[in-house]
Amino acid sequence: MLMEPEEVCSKVLEAITPTPEEEEEVLSIARSIMDKLRSLLAEEGVEAVVRLEGSLAKGTWLRGEADVDIFVRLKPDVGRDFLKREFMRIARRATEGYKQVERYAEHPYLECWAGGVRINLVPCYDVEKGNWLSATDRTPYHTDYVREHLPEELKGDVRLLKRFLKGIGAYGAEIKVGGFSGYLCELLIIYYGGFLEALRGSMAWRRGTLIDLEGYYRGREDEALEFFRHHLIVVDPVDPGRNVAAPVRLEKMCSFMAAAREFLSRPSEDFFFPRRPAPPGQEELKSMVRGRGTSILALRLHVGGLVPDVLWGQLHRTMRGLSGSLREQGFRVLRAGAWSDEVAEAIILFELEASELPPVVKKVGPPVWAGEHVERFLSKNMADPRLVCGPYIEGDRWVVLVRRRWPDAVGFLKAKLSEHGGRGIGVAPLLAQRVEEGFELLSGEEVVRLCRGAEGFREFLAEFLRGRPTWLAGRGGQAP
Amino acid sequence: MLMEPEEVCSKVLEAITPTPEEEEEVLSIARSIMDKLRSLLAEEGVEAVVRLEGSLAKGTWLRGEADVDIFVRLKPDVGRDFLKREFMRIARRATEGYKQVERYAEHPYLECWAGGVRINLVPCYDVEKGNWLSATDRTPYHTDYVREHLPEELKGDVRLLKRFLKGIGAYGAEIKVGGFSGYLCELLIIYYGGFLEALRGSMAWRRGTLIDLEGYYRGREDEALEFFRHHLIVVDPVDPGRNVAAPVRLEKMCSFMAAAREFLSRPSEDFFFPRRPAPPGQEELKSMVRGRGTSILALRLHVGGLVPDVLWGQLHRTMRGLSGSLREQGFRVLRAGAWSDEVAEAIILFELEASELPPVVKKVGPPVWAGEHVERFLSKNMADPRLVCGPYIEGDRWVVLVRRRWPDAVGFLKAKLSEHGGRGIGVAPLLAQRVEEGFELLSGEEVVRLCRGAEGFREFLAEFLRGRPTWLAGRGGQAP
Repeated sequence: MLMEPEEVCSKVLEAITPTPEEEEEVLSIARSIMDKLRSLLAEEGVEAVVRLEGSLAKGTWLRGEADVDIFVRLKPDVGRDFLKREFMRIARRATEGYKQVERYAEHPYLECWAGGVRINLVPCYDVEKGNWLSATDRTPYHTDYVREHLPEELKGDVRLLKRFLKGIGAYGAEIKVGGFSGYLCELLIIYYGGFLEALRGSMAWRRGTLIDLEGYYRGREDEALEFFRHHLIVVDPVDPGRNVAAPVRLEKMCSFMAAAREFLSRPSEDFFFPRRPAPPGQEELKSMVRGRGTSILALRLHVGGLVPDVLWGQLHRTMRGLSGSLREQGFRVLRAGAWSDEVAEAIILFELEASELPPVVKKVGPPVWAGEHVERFLSKNMADPRLVCGPYIEGDRWVVLVRRRWPDAVGFLKAKLSEHGGRGIGVAPLLAQRVEEGFELLSGEEVVRLCRGAEGFREFLAEFLRGRPTWLAGRGGQAP
Repeated sequence: MLMEPEEVCSKVLEAITPTPEEEEEVLSIARSIMDKLRSLLAEEGVEAVVRLEGSLAKGTWLRGEADVDIFVRLKPDVGRDFLKREFMRIARRATEGYKQVERYAEHPYLECWAGGVRINLVPCYDVEKGNWLSATDRTPYHTDYVREHLPEELKGDVRLLKRFLKGIGAYGAEIKVGGFSGYLCELLIIYYGGFLEALRGSMAWRRGTLIDLEGYYRGREDEALEFFRHHLIVVDPVDPGRNVAAPVRLEKMCSFMAAAREFLSRPSEDFFFPRRPAPPGQEELKSMVRGRGTSILALRLHVGGLVPDVLWGQLHRTMRGLSGSLREQGFRVLRAGAWSDEVAEAIILFELEASELPPVVKKVGPPVWAGEHVERFLSKNMADPRLVCGPYIEGDRWVVLVRRRWPDAVGFLKAKLSEHGGRGIGVAPLLAQRVEEGFELLSGEEVVRLCRGAEGFREFLAEFLRGRPTWLAGRGGQAP
């Protein structure tokens, strides 16, 4: 029954390698737009190099998921203003007839759609290595590096790694995912010499792993660790000051490591193409929440007008901030998670041991020798109607038992979110503005109500409750 | 209304200085026993020096609380066996007619009672300083030191300090108290030059205070701190290797510091002679426990046959051990306390935020790279019917949410105390033997039931619930 990893890989590879027809179709779209761009630029007297970049240029894209990345390398003396205005005008003209969306990263670029194929028209500066003027200037160098160092026979391995990471939810450098970029996948395959080799290699990873293909830090690895200060460091071969793995969050690094280990001992196509169970219905979800023994809280807010990376950054900060504030109040926060449709609304979930705490809490005051602090602590607490016991001395400190101000998490959050949008308890600034306009706070079974009307939240909630990577399914065991 | 500290002191001094009549009476008892001892020793041909020691010899005892400490200094070649047998026989003969109790410290001694006066007959070796053969050999040197260094006019200050420490419950080096010995009081008065001076001096104390009257460690104070490793170090003037303050627990040191500060700003006789409120009745106690919002647990056990220092050592160890085990299970232990009649039974009290915990707990497993540990963690937990959620990765570790095995503190303690007398959860060995013979575990209002039949427990319980030193009464404020 059990297949060898190599067998699984070759089956998967069949499914993810683009057909020659697809390749021809996508490349011809690319060529026609590039030709148009070139003639428009010439017409306007703009000196520029138009190049195909990204996975299409490197031959590492996945079947049916081609992105056409067309870069326009401009001379360094062209102003930022040109990028914002003239470039966009020319790009729009070059893609007339396609659906167009203006996007922003560090600077604007144009996204177009030809059927299911996305085409990105991105401006950058034609500079020497190291003299970067904009964030996208490195891209052509990345393309060149991979073309030079990735042998033809390893392109499939890059595809396997990308598909594997997609399957386990760790593909993509965007903040929502915090995972591995396509370029990072290519570098890992070049470094380890293959997909299975990379999986095996990851088993030696620890917090503070350094991969330095060009040996920029040879003999001074400690310096590199100190300089980059990250759990996973893959030095950019075209820029020794840049960590290609910087966007990889610790959990995603570890998910990859854990999934790699699991795949090597229980190989299965499910890692690449996870089978998601059909999401449970309202009543089933309610009974899951009810029977669980924990407390689920949901904060729902409107988030229109934020670009995804900003939105997810703010959501993660808010999640951490609110978890911290709940912990400060004594609540035991088991987990938190955030969902958003990226257009209109977001929901942050918290799972607590209990949303109500025992009424009395211990308050540890100053050490007995801290004169004025002692004076203040004693007079304040001895006058407090919430005092239950003390003041007494424990170790070297004054201590009291007092009734909690906030024994109920819902009450606490409602009250504090209504003050300045919750800035005081860790809501990130842009979301605090939205909270000030209104929010909903639900608990227990009520949370299930949010599945109606919020596309995709049902799946998110079901996965949150299960809280188990699908790729552990091969082990059987208790359903969580 | 407010008196000056000096005024309070002189009023207290009147009350605690022995009258000439008392002094004469006690000294004549001492003299007659010493004479008898000397002639019996001579009769038996035992070469020995009979001396009066302790507070009576130093003139620092409190009115109505005289102890007659008679030491017999034997030649170093006298065997330990002699101390155990011959000495006790002679001591008994010397005190015929008095009520006699054989006591044990490092070696046996005889305690007798003449009315309300206790007389201790203690053997020791007549050795040079430093060549100590038994724990009591230092005593005559202590007496000599104090006699030489304590001026007549400061004897009252020693009495004030002793009475002050008694009033705040910090007098006595025995393990039950963990406070200041009489000798330590004398040294502090010699060092600071007076009672109020000692109180003021204590305001500069911190963890790691060094008082070195003879300057043994002058210029190498850090070494002394390192050598003694204690929060309060008072180097014995007759033995540089001994810390006279070693028995002083941090809390008692800090109680003294805090009470000193309080007395200096709100002087009152109450510090010396605390007014204890009449203990509440059964119903009042019950309603105090009920309305409190915390959970009180009581473990009652039989403790006959243990000498006080051993008993209290075991009780404190057990209290710490059980508190730690409860905390490990997730219970928040607010406070603990121990009571005993020192004859038959003991009660250990615990106050918890709640004796029942939410049903689900987070279990943090190994980091993802810990191969075998991961394998064990995943297979164990995925097969566990108590699994609620996961396994999932948090940070770099595998985590699960599982139903608690012991959500109820009473259930936990009952089960674990029934296994080997609770040795596995921190019951000290000698008490574990007693627990094996039987114990009672009570919670909430039930605890009040223990007041019937356990002399003195009612007062202890009431003070435990109030948890406030009586000497804070001068501040008024909320009743706890």
